[in-house]
Amino acid sequence: MKRGGYLITFEGGEGSGKSSQIRFAASYVRGEGRKALVVREPGTTKIGEQVRKILLNPRHLSMAVETELFLYLAARAQLVREVIRPALRSGKVVISDRFEDSTIAYQGYAGGLPLVGVRGRVPRFMEFARGTLVPDLTFFLDVEARKGLRRSGRKDRMERKSVGFHERLRRGYYAIARKNRKRFVVIPSGCSKSEVRKQIRAVLDRVFSRTR
Amino acid sequence: MKRGGYLITFEGGEGSGKSSQIRFAASYVRGEGRKALVVREPGTTKIGEQVRKILLNPRHLSMAVETELFLYLAARAQLVREVIRPALRSGKVVISDRFEDSTIAYQGYAGGLPLVGVRGRVPRFMEFARGTLVPDLTFFLDVEARKGLRRSGRKDRMERKSVGFHERLRRGYYAIARKNRKRFVVIPSGCSKSEVRKQIRAVLDRVFSRTR
Repeated sequence: MKRGGYLITFEGGEGSGKSSQIRFAASYVRGEGRKALVVREPGTTKIGEQVRKILLNPRHLSMAVETELFLYLAARAQLVREVIRPALRSGKVVISDRFEDSTIAYQGYAGGLPLVGVRGRVPRFMEFARGTLVPDLTFFLDVEARKGLRRSGRKDRMERKSVGFHERLRRGYYAIARKNRKRFVVIPSGCSKSEVRKQIRAVLDRVFSRTR
Repeated sequence: MKRGGYLITFEGGEGSGKSSQIRFAASYVRGEGRKALVVREPGTTKIGEQVRKILLNPRHLSMAVETELFLYLAARAQLVREVIRPALRSGKVVISDRFEDSTIAYQGYAGGLPLVGVRGRVPRFMEFARGTLVPDLTFFLDVEARKGLRRSGRKDRMERKSVGFHERLRRGYYAIARKNRKRFVVIPSGCSKSEVRKQIRAVLDRVFSRTR
């Protein structure tokens, strides 16, 4: 692993258990003597957290999928410039709860917006948001749609979408993973929390041992 | 003028006097026996008004121009789908305080984002927001940068930008007007309020008399 900054993202549907695994990954990275910064999308910046409130408000049922897309891109644009880029520049390991793959899976594959071209290329305006930044490593925590929805307790606007939506989402994530094999690690559904942890740990071990 | 819906937009820098001229135009349209609906961008919808608050908050000094772009597009996407399209479908005259030209002038020409291609074409993702809707008529109320800034009393985040920014903005609006001669009416700076009114009235007279 390069000694400079490193961007790790966690992806998955609702109730996939990202949060607890992100805490684990961060403490693992810190245990290796590296500085780790956990961010979430949308959010983390003051502006992004305000955008998050608009996005997840369950009363905003009339929100168009295009509105959704642009709000996520707005939050990302701010997060990248205000937090992620400076942190990577100072050599930190940034761990992000969601990133561009979420937009492609949620608003693209599940929401129906044409965000993936014929040759699997993402439209250029997505780069306006992330500014050429690509994750070094992405963990996709798979979960069956029904199971994940049962698990996630509070119901925000995204969680209230139909089971059909969450099934398209899951298939979308698998399609993205196939197109980005180098950086994607798929953690299959049905694993226990500690099994997931072990798999994440094994990958991080491999990545980090290279720089020891 | 076609009997169906009609979209009129007002554009201009800070302190160009749009608000009062919009009120005039709306009452003129109503006087002609047509239903008029005034909307503003960003805003009008519940979601759009929340986005507006984020955008104009003077404390958000660290907002990246890309963030700004996507927030404006989010508000527009919602406004078009929730309000403008249904109103046009029911035959109303919609008068909008700002529309896509504002994005091209503010975030493009003045803000420096590459929103205008070599042949004057706007990138396709802008259409994700407005959904192929193009104004039938656009009034551009020109104002000298310094004068306009003096005139506009309260200082929101956009109004606090430098005089240089507002000069680029003005040149940008003129460039957009040249590229869209058919729908643009340029009201030169230095006209009194009542002179501006007269010019708007003359144009509306011409447009509306065609359907009488």
